[in-house]
Amino acid sequence: MNILDLLVGKPIKTSDERAEQIGPAQGVPIFGLDALSSAAYGPEAALSLLIPLGLLGVRYIVPISAAIITLLVIVYFSYRQTIAAYPSGGGSYTVARFNIGARAGLLAAAALLADYILTAAVGISAGVGALVSAVPSLLPHTVSLCVGILVIITILNLRGVREAGTVFAIPTYLFVGTLLITIVAGILRVLLSGGHPQPVVPLPPPPPMTEAVSYWLLLKVFASGCTALTGVEAVSNGVKAFREPTVKNAQRTLTIIIFLLAVLLAGISYLVKSYGIVATDPGKPGYQSILSILTAAVFGKGFFYYLSMGAILIVLSLSANTAFADFPRLCRAIARNNYLPHTFAYRGRRLVYTYGIVVLALLSGSVLILFRGVTDRLIPLYAVGAFLAFTLSQAGMVMHWWKKRGPHWLKSAFVNGLGALVTGITTAVVLLAKFVEGAWITLLFIPSVITLFVRVRQHYHRVKVLTTCKIPVDVAGLNQAPIAVVPIDRWNSITRQGVEFAARLSPEVVALHVEPDEHSILLRDEWQHYVEKSFRAAGKEPPQLQIVPSPYRFIVIPILQFVLELSKKNPGRNIVVVIPELVEDKWYEYFLHNQRGRLLEWMILVRGNEHIFTVSAPWHIREQK
Amino acid sequence: MNILDLLVGKPIKTSDERAEQIGPAQGVPIFGLDALSSAAYGPEAALSLLIPLGLLGVRYIVPISAAIITLLVIVYFSYRQTIAAYPSGGGSYTVARFNIGARAGLLAAAALLADYILTAAVGISAGVGALVSAVPSLLPHTVSLCVGILVIITILNLRGVREAGTVFAIPTYLFVGTLLITIVAGILRVLLSGGHPQPVVPLPPPPPMTEAVSYWLLLKVFASGCTALTGVEAVSNGVKAFREPTVKNAQRTLTIIIFLLAVLLAGISYLVKSYGIVATDPGKPGYQSILSILTAAVFGKGFFYYLSMGAILIVLSLSANTAFADFPRLCRAIARNNYLPHTFAYRGRRLVYTYGIVVLALLSGSVLILFRGVTDRLIPLYAVGAFLAFTLSQAGMVMHWWKKRGPHWLKSAFVNGLGALVTGITTAVVLLAKFVEGAWITLLFIPSVITLFVRVRQHYHRVKVLTTCKIPVDVAGLNQAPIAVVPIDRWNSITRQGVEFAARLSPEVVALHVEPDEHSILLRDEWQHYVEKSFRAAGKEPPQLQIVPSPYRFIVIPILQFVLELSKKNPGRNIVVVIPELVEDKWYEYFLHNQRGRLLEWMILVRGNEHIFTVSAPWHIREQK
Repeated sequence: MNILDLLVGKPIKTSDERAEQIGPAQGVPIFGLDALSSAAYGPEAALSLLIPLGLLGVRYIVPISAAIITLLVIVYFSYRQTIAAYPSGGGSYTVARFNIGARAGLLAAAALLADYILTAAVGISAGVGALVSAVPSLLPHTVSLCVGILVIITILNLRGVREAGTVFAIPTYLFVGTLLITIVAGILRVLLSGGHPQPVVPLPPPPPMTEAVSYWLLLKVFASGCTALTGVEAVSNGVKAFREPTVKNAQRTLTIIIFLLAVLLAGISYLVKSYGIVATDPGKPGYQSILSILTAAVFGKGFFYYLSMGAILIVLSLSANTAFADFPRLCRAIARNNYLPHTFAYRGRRLVYTYGIVVLALLSGSVLILFRGVTDRLIPLYAVGAFLAFTLSQAGMVMHWWKKRGPHWLKSAFVNGLGALVTGITTAVVLLAKFVEGAWITLLFIPSVITLFVRVRQHYHRVKVLTTCKIPVDVAGLNQAPIAVVPIDRWNSITRQGVEFAARLSPEVVALHVEPDEHSILLRDEWQHYVEKSFRAAGKEPPQLQIVPSPYRFIVIPILQFVLELSKKNPGRNIVVVIPELVEDKWYEYFLHNQRGRLLEWMILVRGNEHIFTVSAPWHIREQK
Repeated sequence: MNILDLLVGKPIKTSDERAEQIGPAQGVPIFGLDALSSAAYGPEAALSLLIPLGLLGVRYIVPISAAIITLLVIVYFSYRQTIAAYPSGGGSYTVARFNIGARAGLLAAAALLADYILTAAVGISAGVGALVSAVPSLLPHTVSLCVGILVIITILNLRGVREAGTVFAIPTYLFVGTLLITIVAGILRVLLSGGHPQPVVPLPPPPPMTEAVSYWLLLKVFASGCTALTGVEAVSNGVKAFREPTVKNAQRTLTIIIFLLAVLLAGISYLVKSYGIVATDPGKPGYQSILSILTAAVFGKGFFYYLSMGAILIVLSLSANTAFADFPRLCRAIARNNYLPHTFAYRGRRLVYTYGIVVLALLSGSVLILFRGVTDRLIPLYAVGAFLAFTLSQAGMVMHWWKKRGPHWLKSAFVNGLGALVTGITTAVVLLAKFVEGAWITLLFIPSVITLFVRVRQHYHRVKVLTTCKIPVDVAGLNQAPIAVVPIDRWNSITRQGVEFAARLSPEVVALHVEPDEHSILLRDEWQHYVEKSFRAAGKEPPQLQIVPSPYRFIVIPILQFVLELSKKNPGRNIVVVIPELVEDKWYEYFLHNQRGRLLEWMILVRGNEHIFTVSAPWHIREQK
């Protein structure tokens, strides 16, 4: 227990929950890391598709960014409404389930689960990728680095939501701070230079134009840029993590996140256009990220440049944390509706949903190991889930307002309807633009997860129906004592304890000895001397000693067969198998004694019937000292 | 069970043991592979130390071989006597234990265990080494090949001793046959050519002489050549595997093995001298083994050459099998004296000592993986164990004859005494000559194993003393029924079954509900309705319902604490914890229900006391269908 205390901290009382709840200051790093870090890769994803247009492409970045920011604002308003309407959290899953129907809820849930698993994997691998491109000697350790960061994030999350928020606050605010300073300084330079700023470090030379502009290309640029929106959903799933006033605090957190993200996106795209920065090809030598080119152009490659790059690197790899904050909460919501094992709904010692955290760590760890930390191929799969969930959530909110039809319901429904329409179109665009590259995998994953959900629920339903009990206890049958069976090896204190216990449970005791060799004569003598004589002296019927030969030297199977046959001969009668067991003092002594008792217990549990019970009669070495 | 049947065969009855016993025809491959295969590496090991003497070194091989063969014959006669004196097997361990003392026995046992682990590892790696030098493209797969062969040998041994003998017979007799043909043909050519035979394939050019002859060098050559003697011990450990007349069959097997080995060693050394073959350096290009040079010189590189080389390769890698035949038998002998866990003495479904086979496979597998299949560094450690065991065994036999002092005892004692003296000197020589190269590791290993032996025996002794029981059953106390505790979660069929069972065991039942949330009102109602009412109607005292709050949401720990406290309040009174459990239908349903019942059972077993018993009250889903 002490190792657990050290690793994840001391248990927290349920009644101390309020101290564990968070405000916006911790909420932004916990639920906003994913969204904010996308300022580092969203514009990059869009701009790299514009490379074939050469310097001409730069002029499209401002209108496309404007479209993405508009979409962001629409999504923001609809999630604000969602938080107010569903203060117990659950996000897209809950909204779609309550307003559209169970199937739509499951669709949203499966899409989100896929999204979170990939968010965790892609975030870590992107961070490690940035680190490795800065320090190439670390390249062979990519997978180990990924797994190491995953383990750290997992432990921090197991320690509780507050602690994670505190730890992640520094890099988050450092990232936002340095980027804002760069943006403000860059805008000042643009204005002071009359719109033609001189970069401190020369820009990479713009590539020649090799392609003409087309609507399809611009659509793909937009779809890629939309990866900047993943993570916006996060706050709505985690409303319950906030302290009172819960809804206000959650909304404030969302507002801060979206406001910062919008400012960062707008600032970056304005500067990219003003400086005329063209992306470099990530596959080719001389590659530099957009933010690296931009920071160097504004400030040169000094201390501030390296500070900014360091912050980006840390924030990218920690963006996985948003998935850790939301995945367990979503699983809990699903499990409470019986679609996932109930263990997902139990809160561990630190009031977090331990199982969800561990399962997410295992799943995204497998993805990282399977793809050896190079998750480039996973990025295409990634936005589909998020946008599908967005769409279902918005559409659900429209239904919600329509069902309630309170004052101004039309205004609210319009906001969410617009959100649903735009995110729906975006889902289709993303799916089309990225289908071949891998989005089809998500399309296979989602229905299999839904099948799993349905199966799990069917099982729970079946068990519930079978175990529901409207019959009172049958007191009349209680007088019939069970038959007690005691498997014994030889006569010793352990056996004696077992026989005495069995005799206390029932007047009908059978001692069973399985005989692979021929040492039963001694046992018979001892049985007569130590057991039968005492019983006769007390005027009682002594227990029988049954000896069963075992030609194949098996011990456990003949006992099981004997018990099953006894049960067949006495239908309806309870049988108690009393298993005398030696309990070792130290764990390594385990190897010194056979563990047949435990094996027998397990075999009877699996192969027995409802009338057969097993009793462990433990005999502790340590007490006899 | 079906996979096991397929892999290792159907179980064999104890009474069918005789059919599993073997005669000399299977005995030679099973117990002789190690000894016979040493004809392939013993002369090689000696000759490669003679390289610095150039062509001059060849003249020393015949006297040194003569000395080794003499030693072999001495050892043979003393082991023949050992077999007759100890027909139940056990070899050096048993002999040293009975005649010198327990400590000497343990020393012999530890030395032999070390020897067998290394025999298995070195044999396999030598075979794979030969294969890899023939087919260099397999080099990167060295470890996998080693492990693969190890797995095959392990499974064959688990299938039973007879089957292993049959499978290994073909390569063994092929190896001996081809080598004998080469020797006979070679001797004929030597004689026909008047002592100056012309090699069919030219010999590698002899290296220049770089060192002078010294006694120390010749001593080292002798010590290296003595590796040819390891494996002679094997038959004496496995006497019980032979069919009636056991001793005669075992002696015959030993005679055949030693005779063949002596002929092979003598023939090889004669031909090496006659042809003037100088060993080539194994580390340098152009390396060829002695047997390869010799066979090519006699027959040229035709079909027969490749057949011989193939046989050598297979026999080397299968020589590990001797360790598999003896290690489990030795462990069983040690375990029967309580120095190793008793499981080593149980015979599995195929009448072999399953645990010993599996433990040897694990240990030698670890050695192979740790040294990546390159066991050159292990060879120095290797002969020490065998010769130490030889010496102790011979010395023990001298004591044996002296104690009995039957007719001709002096003759027998002389044979064994000579053996002890010579093997003792050899042990010292081997240890001195190879100390720095690695023999010191064996010197560390042996005392740690002996410490383990002593500790294990102390434990068994302590348990035996503690559990020995000369007190008859206490019938007077049997009337006091135990207190039954039933942990319950909510009211359902599983709970009902548990409560009914508990009420049958005892009139004093406590139902225990641990309360992390607040749904106990419903439970109280149902308890009153379904339990209390029925009991009252039957005029009985209903069981109490105890509700325990759990501020940290733990379930198992509060139950454990309650039970321990109840036990403290009722000293001497038995407490039965009845654990209602849902038994899943399919294994994967395991994940859908919490396994707290099993956890509680385990916790009570470990942390409870001798008055606390647990009962599993299994409720099977499948029966309710």
